[in-house]
Amino acid sequence: MSSGEIAFIDSLRELAVHPAARGLTDDAAVLEIGGETLVLTKDAMVEGVHWPPQQSLTDVAWKLVAVNLSDLAAKGAEPVGVMLGYALGSDDSAFLDGLKAALESFDVPLLGGDTVSGSDRRTFSLTAIGRATHTPVPSRAGARPGDGIYLCGSVGGAMMGFEALTGTGRADRTPFTRPTPLLAKGCALSPHVTAMMDVSDGLLLDAWRMAQASKVTLSIDSTAVPIAAPESRRDDALRWGDDYALLFTAPTDTALPTDASLIGIVHEAGATPLTLDEEALGDPEGLGYRH
Amino acid sequence: MSSGEIAFIDSLRELAVHPAARGLTDDAAVLEIGGETLVLTKDAMVEGVHWPPQQSLTDVAWKLVAVNLSDLAAKGAEPVGVMLGYALGSDDSAFLDGLKAALESFDVPLLGGDTVSGSDRRTFSLTAIGRATHTPVPSRAGARPGDGIYLCGSVGGAMMGFEALTGTGRADRTPFTRPTPLLAKGCALSPHVTAMMDVSDGLLLDAWRMAQASKVTLSIDSTAVPIAAPESRRDDALRWGDDYALLFTAPTDTALPTDASLIGIVHEAGATPLTLDEEALGDPEGLGYRH
Repeated sequence: MSSGEIAFIDSLRELAVHPAARGLTDDAAVLEIGGETLVLTKDAMVEGVHWPPQQSLTDVAWKLVAVNLSDLAAKGAEPVGVMLGYALGSDDSAFLDGLKAALESFDVPLLGGDTVSGSDRRTFSLTAIGRATHTPVPSRAGARPGDGIYLCGSVGGAMMGFEALTGTGRADRTPFTRPTPLLAKGCALSPHVTAMMDVSDGLLLDAWRMAQASKVTLSIDSTAVPIAAPESRRDDALRWGDDYALLFTAPTDTALPTDASLIGIVHEAGATPLTLDEEALGDPEGLGYRH
Repeated sequence: MSSGEIAFIDSLRELAVHPAARGLTDDAAVLEIGGETLVLTKDAMVEGVHWPPQQSLTDVAWKLVAVNLSDLAAKGAEPVGVMLGYALGSDDSAFLDGLKAALESFDVPLLGGDTVSGSDRRTFSLTAIGRATHTPVPSRAGARPGDGIYLCGSVGGAMMGFEALTGTGRADRTPFTRPTPLLAKGCALSPHVTAMMDVSDGLLLDAWRMAQASKVTLSIDSTAVPIAAPESRRDDALRWGDDYALLFTAPTDTALPTDASLIGIVHEAGATPLTLDEEALGDPEGLGYRH
């Protein structure tokens, strides 16, 4: 990320003055309205940036829905509906097929949207609206020293799927092309966690962000991380994104309602936000995928 | 609009199965949640399509906010907040200036959003969330035979402003560059109207759409339409968009809470959805700006 991009995002954060607004420091905005707590997410996908040319538009549409619902999952929110922003191009029917499949699979309605024409590159954006099932809604900022660090799901499967799609790998492509947001698990976990986020940009980078937001140090044991990749690719799996596992912290004596792996411990803020196998990882560069 | 685009939008409408979903046949989605009625809009702006090169990004940002809030105004909804989708480019600070000015002017918070990089053309999208002040929320579909057709605001000002911005005209550019959504008027009108929409794509085209949605014929008297342009440009003013006036229907004996001009009468559905000075306008082609 360039310094200009960082400055822009910082300026946006300053504009987000609403007390309930966490959308620019977190993956979703939380809004109290009419006795309900709504969670709103917005994710865009740009051609040539967010998917490889080998990926079908059907799968791109699925993924657009899945990544937004994954942000809801990390907030313990049930989806209420989605709004689509769509730049018309060719192959629109392939996109529709994937959109329809994802909406049916995740049982979420399309509420509305906007279509525009004239864009050179396809750009799709989705806003997902969810209803929090538990308050306070989990954020990235609640990890406390002494908490365990957990991963629900695994990492590396999307990497293997990507390599199969774009190269000569023979692994299952589905984890990359058609990820599944952990909606039910996110809702079940939300009353028990101190912090939670989905792993979209790489486990280490996302853990680094959680540590920064929580003002603590996260110490991760690399061998404890469940990976869906050969052992020889463990290092890569910790840095690859797109897996949509749930990274969370909770007191280690918590009876968790769903399977999750203890992958480390939260410490008081030390010299760096993140350690891996007791080695400091202070610089987020190289820890994951930033976009 | 090409036949492919129309087919795509029709397919999207079929996907929008939620009973409350009106977003793809209307300008906004209406959602009942927690005893409140939320109104959600989504509008995107693409470089080279939705603004001329002479328009500053500061004004583009303002307009992005204004057009979404105008959709809320037509629903009688108060803004709760907006979510921004932003493809990073250069001149991002100019965009931020306009965004900040619009958010302050309309007293609406930025709740969150997503930034992406790598797009060739700037593409901005905004989702606005509003709270309906009156239910049922006005739609395009409620115009009834015998109702008066009214315009709150005027048309043609944006056309004159555009010509001043891009050519040699000397008119005030503000109606084009910095339109003002009629939020307070929309809220005041919403209990009294049978149908309402904002005039974003041209009065005649938008009236044609209202007639189609309501299954009636709208008969408009061109000389009764208030225009913010020279009389010699009246025909153009009725077809130009971007004015964000409110077009609505109501019984002619209604005591309206705000100034509005009676510009025609709703009839039973006839041979064409729209007549102008008693002449049938059956084909929407040429009635306005379609995007």
